[in-house]
Amino acid sequence: IAKEVAKLLEMKAQLGGDEGKHKFVLKTPKGTRDYSPKQMAIRERVFNAIISCFKRHGAEVIDTPVFELKETLTGKYGEDSKLIYDLKDQGGELLSLRYDLTVPFARYLAMNKITNIKRYHIAKVYRRDNPAMTRGRYREFYQCDFDIAGQFDPMIPDAECLKIVHEILSDLQLGDFLIKVNDRRILDGMFAVCGVPDSKFRTICSSIDKLDKMPWEEVRSEMVGEKGLSPEAADHIGEYVQLHGGLDLIEQLLQDPKLSQNKLAKEGLGDMKLLFEYLTLFGITGKISFDLSLARGLDYYTGVIFEAVLLQQENDHVEEPVSVGSVAGGGRYDGLVGMFDPKGRKVPCVGVSIGIERIFSILEQRVEASEEKIRTTETQVLVASAQKKLLEERLKLIAELWDAGIKAEVLYKKNPKLLNQLQYCEDTGIPLVAIVGEQELKDGVIKLRVVATREEVNVRRESLVEEIRRRTSQ
Amino acid sequence: IAKEVAKLLEMKAQLGGDEGKHKFVLKTPKGTRDYSPKQMAIRERVFNAIISCFKRHGAEVIDTPVFELKETLTGKYGEDSKLIYDLKDQGGELLSLRYDLTVPFARYLAMNKITNIKRYHIAKVYRRDNPAMTRGRYREFYQCDFDIAGQFDPMIPDAECLKIVHEILSDLQLGDFLIKVNDRRILDGMFAVCGVPDSKFRTICSSIDKLDKMPWEEVRSEMVGEKGLSPEAADHIGEYVQLHGGLDLIEQLLQDPKLSQNKLAKEGLGDMKLLFEYLTLFGITGKISFDLSLARGLDYYTGVIFEAVLLQQENDHVEEPVSVGSVAGGGRYDGLVGMFDPKGRKVPCVGVSIGIERIFSILEQRVEASEEKIRTTETQVLVASAQKKLLEERLKLIAELWDAGIKAEVLYKKNPKLLNQLQYCEDTGIPLVAIVGEQELKDGVIKLRVVATREEVNVRRESLVEEIRRRTSQ
Repeated sequence: IAKEVAKLLEMKAQLGGDEGKHKFVLKTPKGTRDYSPKQMAIRERVFNAIISCFKRHGAEVIDTPVFELKETLTGKYGEDSKLIYDLKDQGGELLSLRYDLTVPFARYLAMNKITNIKRYHIAKVYRRDNPAMTRGRYREFYQCDFDIAGQFDPMIPDAECLKIVHEILSDLQLGDFLIKVNDRRILDGMFAVCGVPDSKFRTICSSIDKLDKMPWEEVRSEMVGEKGLSPEAADHIGEYVQLHGGLDLIEQLLQDPKLSQNKLAKEGLGDMKLLFEYLTLFGITGKISFDLSLARGLDYYTGVIFEAVLLQQENDHVEEPVSVGSVAGGGRYDGLVGMFDPKGRKVPCVGVSIGIERIFSILEQRVEASEEKIRTTETQVLVASAQKKLLEERLKLIAELWDAGIKAEVLYKKNPKLLNQLQYCEDTGIPLVAIVGEQELKDGVIKLRVVATREEVNVRRESLVEEIRRRTSQ
Repeated sequence: IAKEVAKLLEMKAQLGGDEGKHKFVLKTPKGTRDYSPKQMAIRERVFNAIISCFKRHGAEVIDTPVFELKETLTGKYGEDSKLIYDLKDQGGELLSLRYDLTVPFARYLAMNKITNIKRYHIAKVYRRDNPAMTRGRYREFYQCDFDIAGQFDPMIPDAECLKIVHEILSDLQLGDFLIKVNDRRILDGMFAVCGVPDSKFRTICSSIDKLDKMPWEEVRSEMVGEKGLSPEAADHIGEYVQLHGGLDLIEQLLQDPKLSQNKLAKEGLGDMKLLFEYLTLFGITGKISFDLSLARGLDYYTGVIFEAVLLQQENDHVEEPVSVGSVAGGGRYDGLVGMFDPKGRKVPCVGVSIGIERIFSILEQRVEASEEKIRTTETQVLVASAQKKLLEERLKLIAELWDAGIKAEVLYKKNPKLLNQLQYCEDTGIPLVAIVGEQELKDGVIKLRVVATREEVNVRRESLVEEIRRRTSQ
């Protein structure tokens, strides 16, 4: 019988879902979530680390609308275009939610005829993708973008973008990481010497991009089967995409009898060498890997591309660290602004996007595991009373404190118990209590209690603000 | 001929528009705008003032998705529902962009069974309204909301909301302002004693709400003509809505032979009296006006309502100040969370929303007029060189500075001219230049130049970070 009941309960649970409980579905849309105050506290820590890095590198900040004219986004994302959210046609313009911050940035530059800017932009973007929320993949998610636009000497801004990724990932202490670097010109040159027809460059590039999620055999069969590439060309590509290394690999490929004959590949390899020289000056080559399997999905890249992954020792005996997924990516896109400019004027750009949802997930899990207590307010003092009928006095005192810039709270009760007021401080981490009492009012003092030590001192009312400031400034 | 040419040119200009210049329309969607770095700098100042006030009052912070299930928004906004942006049905759930932050907040409380929270939320909301961008009315705009949810003793949280509006508007120095206060129960009681049928309460309320934009005569004819109210009832309402004042008016209405007989009005007036007592303790009644013409458009209010307007002396001879529009508003909505709770459990709420787009407009215009120079970056030092072939040395030095937390920039050129580097500092307000030179490298020093005074000192490389910090910390 017990077995049958269990079976029935399981069936009921499966049937249950939302309809079972109540007619009205109480949820956020698929692939989205609310942020609770605790999650917001973690989110603010991450944002602060990222913003202070962007500001350290002299970036300005801009903002753009959450939706763009549909045509602004058309033809920029290749196979990913199907993931764009459109707004309903309610009369007027056809609109879509932004898919990233790069295309709106390019539109902004062209529209305002800006040929030179270093800016960051932190905002939500939207993709109708299959969500995997536990792994930090959402349909609404933040991007933190830093881009440098302008005609400059080669690879200096590109190197700075990589330095920024290195600084942020080091600062956030997420564990070991690796920044993979490649160049679209090297990829295209490689495709050419492997015998890929020009018309198939972008679609083969999309296949290569899947190498971080699929084994080579599957990618190969997609290229040969679905995309009609010759098996010889595929195998030839297969040899190249295994390669990764540093300056030595670049030198080796510059000597490669086939690649060195290809103009694009040669250009790309020359710039890659220069990039590594700058990264050496920045002291960060230890975490950089020139990796021929890195392709990046988006259509608009024209030069250097890169992607940062977190590494995780699967266990202590395994030599090779395992990648747990991309947390930053970017590259050079010299043609995108020109697509918007009425006269096709190009503005070379390079930029990086920090994918912070995955970083949130990691830090959230870490906070959960550590049982670290996170304060969600900054309140310095609770204005309390020990006796009844002192609401008016509490309100008078708290107004004085607010007007002096002190962060203060009061319980919204006429006659709260002192114990409840102290408990509120314990629960929310408020360090001080300013206690109003009849005797104290007569004496012109306030009793200040330190929650942690239970120490109590009488402070003259006119010195209270100063005393609270002194005790809450570390 | 000249006249004819001018005429033709004018016609051409009128026809021109977007089609004339290029096929591709390069713009942001109607009613939206980008924020330039300069506008962002002003925006951040305003946000900082608002956020520090919210934190001073002990608020936590949450965030919700930009879109909600369509049914979540249905039936919450009365006549304004037609302004909601819907997303296209691309399969899956039907979604709409949020119209305010209050309904998502109520959904959040019900969904997470939260009965007690003080939170703020700053985010963009969306309304398909007729934009008037010069006056700060957009289709995409920020709201800054502070709300207190929970069962508390009457009017204490309500008074705190008004204190917050008072603090923020004082802090932002926007000029003189007035906070109008009323209560939905007083309005409903007034409608009842004036002979408005119950079924017409909400729609007559919407008409009253237009009194800040329309003269009484027009509102009256809307009520009588479109909405079928009797002329006697309308005229009776007309007498009440002229009234505004303070505690004296509350006392007078508590004695009003008709209103004092109405249960709702009596409750509302009693609470209004209590509210004014608390506002007196907070010392802010000087800027508060109990105003019977204040109605607020939204359906969900159930108690106190309020709205802050900026005042402008039209000229020195006019006695009565002229209102230039609402910059904050809010009220009590005790029933909204219950609309989401499957069991209808109510969570009383009161909150305030700061309408910052209008505040931005005012501050932007003020900055333009004052020709105040606003810095859009925080860069402390430019790493420069006086001779050629020092790019490597500049990159080495700037990496040292970044790693020490100094905000530093370098021109992305192999061999920039010193004059151009100094000019860049002038243009962007960078206060210091660290100049690398061959002799200095030999001597182990860096030349530090103060842009404003042209003073130059040699600083030992190991002391450079400390010296930059010392000179840029105020």
